[in-house]
Amino acid sequence: MDGTALTETAIAEMMKDLGQNARHASRTLAGTDTPRKNDALNAAAEALRENTETIKSANAKDMAAAQKKGLSAAMLDRLSLDESRIAAMVNGLQEIAALSDPVGEVISEWSRPNGLSIERVRMPLGVIGVIYESRPNVTADAGGLCLKAGNACILRGGSESFHSSRAILSALQSGLRESGLPESAVQMVPTTDRAAVGEMLTMTGHIDVIVPRGGQSLVERVMRESRVPTFLHLTGLCHTYIHSAADAEKARQIIINSKMRRTGICGAMETLLIDEAIASQVLPPIIDDLIKAGCEVRGDAAVQGLSPNVKPASEEDWDTEYLDAILSVKILKNLDDAIAHIIAHGSEHTDAIITEDQSSADYFMDALSSAIVMHNTSTQFADGGEFGMGAEIGIATGKLHARGPVGVEQLTTFKYKVRGNGQIRP
Amino acid sequence: MDGTALTETAIAEMMKDLGQNARHASRTLAGTDTPRKNDALNAAAEALRENTETIKSANAKDMAAAQKKGLSAAMLDRLSLDESRIAAMVNGLQEIAALSDPVGEVISEWSRPNGLSIERVRMPLGVIGVIYESRPNVTADAGGLCLKAGNACILRGGSESFHSSRAILSALQSGLRESGLPESAVQMVPTTDRAAVGEMLTMTGHIDVIVPRGGQSLVERVMRESRVPTFLHLTGLCHTYIHSAADAEKARQIIINSKMRRTGICGAMETLLIDEAIASQVLPPIIDDLIKAGCEVRGDAAVQGLSPNVKPASEEDWDTEYLDAILSVKILKNLDDAIAHIIAHGSEHTDAIITEDQSSADYFMDALSSAIVMHNTSTQFADGGEFGMGAEIGIATGKLHARGPVGVEQLTTFKYKVRGNGQIRP
Repeated sequence: MDGTALTETAIAEMMKDLGQNARHASRTLAGTDTPRKNDALNAAAEALRENTETIKSANAKDMAAAQKKGLSAAMLDRLSLDESRIAAMVNGLQEIAALSDPVGEVISEWSRPNGLSIERVRMPLGVIGVIYESRPNVTADAGGLCLKAGNACILRGGSESFHSSRAILSALQSGLRESGLPESAVQMVPTTDRAAVGEMLTMTGHIDVIVPRGGQSLVERVMRESRVPTFLHLTGLCHTYIHSAADAEKARQIIINSKMRRTGICGAMETLLIDEAIASQVLPPIIDDLIKAGCEVRGDAAVQGLSPNVKPASEEDWDTEYLDAILSVKILKNLDDAIAHIIAHGSEHTDAIITEDQSSADYFMDALSSAIVMHNTSTQFADGGEFGMGAEIGIATGKLHARGPVGVEQLTTFKYKVRGNGQIRP
Repeated sequence: MDGTALTETAIAEMMKDLGQNARHASRTLAGTDTPRKNDALNAAAEALRENTETIKSANAKDMAAAQKKGLSAAMLDRLSLDESRIAAMVNGLQEIAALSDPVGEVISEWSRPNGLSIERVRMPLGVIGVIYESRPNVTADAGGLCLKAGNACILRGGSESFHSSRAILSALQSGLRESGLPESAVQMVPTTDRAAVGEMLTMTGHIDVIVPRGGQSLVERVMRESRVPTFLHLTGLCHTYIHSAADAEKARQIIINSKMRRTGICGAMETLLIDEAIASQVLPPIIDDLIKAGCEVRGDAAVQGLSPNVKPASEEDWDTEYLDAILSVKILKNLDDAIAHIIAHGSEHTDAIITEDQSSADYFMDALSSAIVMHNTSTQFADGGEFGMGAEIGIATGKLHARGPVGVEQLTTFKYKVRGNGQIRP
């Protein structure tokens, strides 16, 4: 259907159908036991593996179109699928199958003086809408995570990855079929028309939560338009603060890793703050490391004074998530100024302190309300896998429901089961 | 400021000031220890008690205006405050002070093979906007609950209760002052202009969550307009299903209580479903009880056949939350039909089954995704106090974050604290 112009009414009807099918499938999934869900995940993994060539040729089509369009090298890299990336999707699904099933877990239970017993039990959210951009592997990751948590999902991938995502979807659906689960448990919007996204964002009766996975313009559109509750994945403007009581060598190792291990992930450090008491001694070798590793360093006047290779930072730099080999660096008077800077400029994603003083670390971690606060380690650990949660659908920075790495557990909600033997309320 | 016409710009500026003050206060509250928050709650309770006469005369002003406007008896009842209702607010605040503090609670903790230790710790949500209607006591309840959970709040009460709510607010703020906490921890929108509500619903930078407490038109406006995440409190279209294996006497007691104990609360039963195998035997005495208690009974043809006093139910009845002494009754073939009816017509608030057969009860409770599912007890127990959670700000029917009774715990979110000793990510 890609490329064909559809009327608004046709799109609305098509989306309503997807929504109704998804709601129907979600009721089946909610009552599906763990072994069957795992069978479907493993069968989907196997089907992906068997269809490696088909997926590669679908991807070649997307890549050719993207090159013709003149997409950036970074975009092309995100879009491209080779055997190792397809194998990683296969492994990802198998790992999701191996995770424990959150559905049915009794979160807490108690009884009341009148004899009523109350259980709080995890259940699926229902139908999850995932809107993503060029990475086609999100199709497998998001589909697999939603399925494990007993949710149906409606996926809307980027237009660049349309053919690749369809080929992956087809493998997922054959896994569902083989295991006797409805194919409509994982559906994809069969058009790249942006009006379909607008429909998704208003389908409050059919979709329980929208997960936007993409850049700022996508997230802003979702924030502005969505009537459906969303898990926000905003920017990761992560800070590391080197406190006056930091171990210089530890700081050096952590900083280069936080910035340069991978610069394009949301947990990459974007701003380095350092206490003035130790800056002249601790900062120069760190700046040298960064510049040697190919990082541009932008600093305030004091930082520029410490190294001729530092470029001037503008006010805008403190509010910029580079997602690139660029770091802004600022020298501050003390811990409170560092906290104030992070509150003013941060995005409540991940912020870290490096110090050997436990009480300063505790003060920093209590004062900030970021989803993840860290002591003496790299912000690059902000990741569901590294947290031991298995695969993740992203890092949420919203405060409601999901926060931090969003794994299978965050894709569930709960209900209360109240059991009595005839109690009535006085 | 009530009654004075304000320009839209003036309202927007006023709301922005409230928002900035609230955000500022929320940072202080997040770092305030439990004893001080409890001191403030107890001082506020004491101030309420001391100002009983002031509050009564403010309420008299509201009541006079409301009578002049010709408000219904039910509305007037909700609005009116006497000494016992003021005493109930005083007790409510003291009970909130006595609850355990959710902030700082370690929800879970684990460590990773690389030595990182991870804690998931409760923290306040930040700033909560509460939009409510005529009941002035919500001012004390909502203000107290938000404060206990370390949140600042912006309250917007109904125009009818403006003077009463202001008098209550004044007592709460004097409690805050006495305990050295900022008055702006609990603020109220100082105008009844509805444009102020529109502002609240778009203040994403200043308000973290909106809690609407009121009728359907308020909730619908909030759903339609809010850019701020909300805790939805939709209708409570609660069902009770009498299964073929029900104990007839237990059913009789539970039904009259579920419907008639209080008809105006969201946990009141609105529709009674009964298995055809036992309807002719079990239903007539229940209908008699209800009619004797002043309840109008509307039924399908089969129910009408069992009693001449039953009025015919229209299709619309199955979708109606009466909040009144009216009950719709339907006879169904079996458990699956009952579940299908509840899925088609329910509001996912509270639904109950009456049966002596444990496996049928489990089947029912697993199949429904209502916030509260019950076995052999009255839907009137759908209440935070009855659940042992202390005071509640309402019963949420949304699936995200808060669900069921919303007490202090649901007014918090969490962050991850990650502690290392120099770990970097490979």
